[in-house]
Amino acid sequence: MDNRLQTIYDTLKQAQLYEHAARVLQFDMETICPPAGMEEQGSIAAELQTKAFALRKDPEFIQAAESLAQDPEGLDEMDRIMIGYLHEDNEKTKRITPEMNHAYALVYNRAFVKWLEAKNAADFSIFAPSLEEVRRVELEQIGLREKSLPCAYDHRLDDYESGMSTEMLDACFGECKERLVPLLSRIMNSKKKIRTDFLSRPVREEAQREMARYLLELLGFDFNRGNFTTSEHPFTEGVGRDDVRLTTHYYENMFSSSMYSIIHECGHALFELNQPSENHDHFLEHKTMGQHESVSRFYENRIGRSEAFVHLIYPKAKELFPEALGDVTERELYEALNVVQPSLVRTEADEFTYTFHIIIRYEIEKMILNGEVRTADLPAIWNAKYREYLGIEPANDREGILQDMHWTSGFGYFPSYALGNMYNAMYMNRMKKEIDVDGAVAVGNMKSILDWMTENVFKTADREHPKDWIRNIAGEEFSPKAFLDYLEEKYTKLYELD
Amino acid sequence: MDNRLQTIYDTLKQAQLYEHAARVLQFDMETICPPAGMEEQGSIAAELQTKAFALRKDPEFIQAAESLAQDPEGLDEMDRIMIGYLHEDNEKTKRITPEMNHAYALVYNRAFVKWLEAKNAADFSIFAPSLEEVRRVELEQIGLREKSLPCAYDHRLDDYESGMSTEMLDACFGECKERLVPLLSRIMNSKKKIRTDFLSRPVREEAQREMARYLLELLGFDFNRGNFTTSEHPFTEGVGRDDVRLTTHYYENMFSSSMYSIIHECGHALFELNQPSENHDHFLEHKTMGQHESVSRFYENRIGRSEAFVHLIYPKAKELFPEALGDVTERELYEALNVVQPSLVRTEADEFTYTFHIIIRYEIEKMILNGEVRTADLPAIWNAKYREYLGIEPANDREGILQDMHWTSGFGYFPSYALGNMYNAMYMNRMKKEIDVDGAVAVGNMKSILDWMTENVFKTADREHPKDWIRNIAGEEFSPKAFLDYLEEKYTKLYELD
Repeated sequence: MDNRLQTIYDTLKQAQLYEHAARVLQFDMETICPPAGMEEQGSIAAELQTKAFALRKDPEFIQAAESLAQDPEGLDEMDRIMIGYLHEDNEKTKRITPEMNHAYALVYNRAFVKWLEAKNAADFSIFAPSLEEVRRVELEQIGLREKSLPCAYDHRLDDYESGMSTEMLDACFGECKERLVPLLSRIMNSKKKIRTDFLSRPVREEAQREMARYLLELLGFDFNRGNFTTSEHPFTEGVGRDDVRLTTHYYENMFSSSMYSIIHECGHALFELNQPSENHDHFLEHKTMGQHESVSRFYENRIGRSEAFVHLIYPKAKELFPEALGDVTERELYEALNVVQPSLVRTEADEFTYTFHIIIRYEIEKMILNGEVRTADLPAIWNAKYREYLGIEPANDREGILQDMHWTSGFGYFPSYALGNMYNAMYMNRMKKEIDVDGAVAVGNMKSILDWMTENVFKTADREHPKDWIRNIAGEEFSPKAFLDYLEEKYTKLYELD
Repeated sequence: MDNRLQTIYDTLKQAQLYEHAARVLQFDMETICPPAGMEEQGSIAAELQTKAFALRKDPEFIQAAESLAQDPEGLDEMDRIMIGYLHEDNEKTKRITPEMNHAYALVYNRAFVKWLEAKNAADFSIFAPSLEEVRRVELEQIGLREKSLPCAYDHRLDDYESGMSTEMLDACFGECKERLVPLLSRIMNSKKKIRTDFLSRPVREEAQREMARYLLELLGFDFNRGNFTTSEHPFTEGVGRDDVRLTTHYYENMFSSSMYSIIHECGHALFELNQPSENHDHFLEHKTMGQHESVSRFYENRIGRSEAFVHLIYPKAKELFPEALGDVTERELYEALNVVQPSLVRTEADEFTYTFHIIIRYEIEKMILNGEVRTADLPAIWNAKYREYLGIEPANDREGILQDMHWTSGFGYFPSYALGNMYNAMYMNRMKKEIDVDGAVAVGNMKSILDWMTENVFKTADREHPKDWIRNIAGEEFSPKAFLDYLEEKYTKLYELD
């Protein structure tokens, strides 16, 4: 084996050791670590991550990667892809030293603490100075790059979703608004009455946990290679190749919340657990958040909220939640799980209005990073957009601009959620041509769905940039059309709009 | 600060970072890590421990410690104690290189795997070769020491319980047998009937968990600095200064099992959580297993199984376990929790017969390490001793000689359990002179007990060798008398033997 390649493998293996340990500490902190133990464990996790970062910054390692990037002749395909990513990452961070990286980390950590404080006090002004600090270090990191793009925000878009640009997203979200705004008002004005009273009936945690396990087994989650527990906010942690954990949160008066967060996180987990094994051997871990959200939201919405899936789980739901569903028909359950109701909080939004929550955040974070707005004006801008798009307005900053923690670690993440919906609508159209999706789901043959996803969606995610990845799956360039057609068809039918 | 001292602090701080991370990984593996993820995580935990061991073996560090051990003049008391321990540890391991240490670790790991295989097959012969391997590496490590003791087993006793010797234990356990053997036969022949039928009535896990939380809060466990969850075998992990976790296991048809494993582990946790903070600052972590078991078994037996404590928790127990305790009186519950019943499995043994399980293991592991027995004969010897002391005999090796994993990591641990009982009986005698223990417990004033333990038992545990520690607490040399007097008095009364 080429010495340079050997150096790269040895270094990445060492870095992976620290990163694996840090992930376990992180997972532990979000699930079982006691409050007073957080600070020490947090600093230890940070030290482990710093050791990993230093390894990835080691001159000998960088040199080996760059020299192979110059002449990739001898490399097999997988190694060539790996070297390509190392080169890209190096291009972006080559002027950032471990010390600078550590300093940035401190800014983001401080911002998180301040955000939490501000959110609890429902007072944006407490967070405002930190937000400006975050903006400053974001611009500093972008300024250290050679590559130049139309605007600062484009750099972050490109980091999160390689190849994505403000120009593309403006067009994409423009189409969304054009079609979804009138459709939303038609939905709001429809005569259709959807019953939702039973969604808030109390359900014991033990019953909800049984349902969670049932859903995970149903979707093909492998309990030999994963596990689940509870945390404040549901998340999925891919600790290792054969170790993916997910979490949920049980609300006594919102049983559908744990059901759908489990299905969503299970999508993330299935994506991680069904990768070609050679990816791991070649340290290929390059899925974008857009790709990841496409799978989690595919399972949550395209599968989980479909008539076929509700038909499949209805008997089990009635059996486990008799007090809540005793007088509820299968149709009533389906409609309640798909009711459209403009709301203030993104994480509780329905499938239809969700996109508006993303558009609002996109429009605002773009202005922030590009310096087109005064920080103090942000809450007013936030509230105005909610009134414009959803006809409602937050009573305070907690349920308004302070609801998400994302900006404590920078900008550019939010579009991933919307892109995920658009990606999965594109590959769902192809899937439906190749297999009878509803037929398979209705009889509980979830394996045929997972097999198709593994073969057509998962396999290439770490190897191709999202633009090429989705084109190669769907046979056409990225566009929101498939997603908008799907929403229009589904909700026109549900709300009897013709 | 003295440069040598600075070197020591810096090195120990680095080592602690790896050890802290390794403890979290270990805890994770025993509680939530999925089966397929175990091997990778286990090897990562091992690499972190190896990094810590290498730091503690660093020549510059050793030299600094040894040179300060030679002239401790400038050191304050705490540093002097720390340096003293470093010197002792170094004396024992100075000829063991990280490579050798790694090789030993592999032997112990292999032995664990083989033991598990043998236990599942209930076939000692599968484990026998590994047991001989363990014996070989134990003797090799002992052989590398300068200090000479009467026999090999004395070295391991001294490692686990500094100052303890075969001579002392032979005498100690001799007294135990002299007084407990006749007492046991009187108990077995007594007319006293103790009702135990309700102990196996089914109790829902949720109710047992509520009871566990109630007990932890009652005993003064600080949920800000600790947490609890479930695992196959209950244990306590002191992850950090402000982070101690404990586990239990809920058996539907044995509600008392989780109650008393929680109380036992809570004892370990209270010991860890109530240390003088300067111990942590001086890297003083030197409690022996005997000291630790003295506290856990103090809470489990001396407090938890007392009439006063049963009186205290009886109402809550009836409220949480109505199906099980509806027709059970407080007195019946107390007697059932203290019934004497010779059994084959140590971990399920009652307070009275427990000591016999330890004596049997002591007598056998002493023979093994000192080379006084053929490995193939061990099962027969084990079974003969159970017949002799307890009048019962295992049907197979699984419930016999293969029940404990301890020998997969060497010999000398078992006496700690018995010593723990003897230590706490000695300090309990003093405690009873200074405070009204039963009176405090009966009204739920557990804080007065914890305060006394913190002041008189916990404070000096890390600073004094157990021999001096117990003498300074009890005002007399170590002896089993207090423990034997206690058992005699309690069980003579319970079984109405006069």
